[in-house]
Amino acid sequence: MKIRNAETVEAKQVEMEGAEDVTMRMLIGPDDKAPTFNMRLFEVAPGGYTPRHTHDWEHEVYVLAGKGVVLENGQDKPIIAGNCIYVPPNEDHQFRNTGGENLKFLCLVPKT
Amino acid sequence: MKIRNAETVEAKQVEMEGAEDVTMRMLIGPDDKAPTFNMRLFEVAPGGYTPRHTHDWEHEVYVLAGKGVVLENGQDKPIIAGNCIYVPPNEDHQFRNTGGENLKFLCLVPKT
Repeated sequence: MKIRNAETVEAKQVEMEGAEDVTMRMLIGPDDKAPTFNMRLFEVAPGGYTPRHTHDWEHEVYVLAGKGVVLENGQDKPIIAGNCIYVPPNEDHQFRNTGGENLKFLCLVPKT
Repeated sequence: MKIRNAETVEAKQVEMEGAEDVTMRMLIGPDDKAPTFNMRLFEVAPGGYTPRHTHDWEHEVYVLAGKGVVLENGQDKPIIAGNCIYVPPNEDHQFRNTGGENLKFLCLVPKT
């Protein structure tokens, strides 16, 4: 078993093209030999956003703090702390922080 | 894409033997045809606990609110909001609420 304070896990800048002011912490993943899926914590600074993209795996997201929008079928849908979001495989998506504090969310993905 | 307020998802009492004062909300799961893993939200009332048990799949846990302990190798380890916990397959575990408010945590598991 591994018990961690999420805030003590190293936050790495997301360098992917199309990302702006986003960090990621790998909370549970390859280093733990997690066999099926990985838990990541993202923080998007005010005005920042994740890349708009599509891929063949799903996202399972839980918003911990802040507010923003997620792009769904070309439309921005509001998201706030306490929302859970399922992004199926092959669906275009992008998360943006539209608030004044960091938008923090867990985003889990299948192991690659 | 599905966007939900977690609090609006039905909370079902966990009837499993060895559980006391625990509810579960299936936030993302079979109804969404989630292909790899399921996101559940548990709430354990003060004094309550999940079953002490072992199984051949992993848990990936994130504590949202409250405080408690998780049993690891026969010892109670403290957990609080902001902790993430990886329980590998085949490891004995039990979550207990030792605080005065509900212990709320996400617990994700592979799809069965």
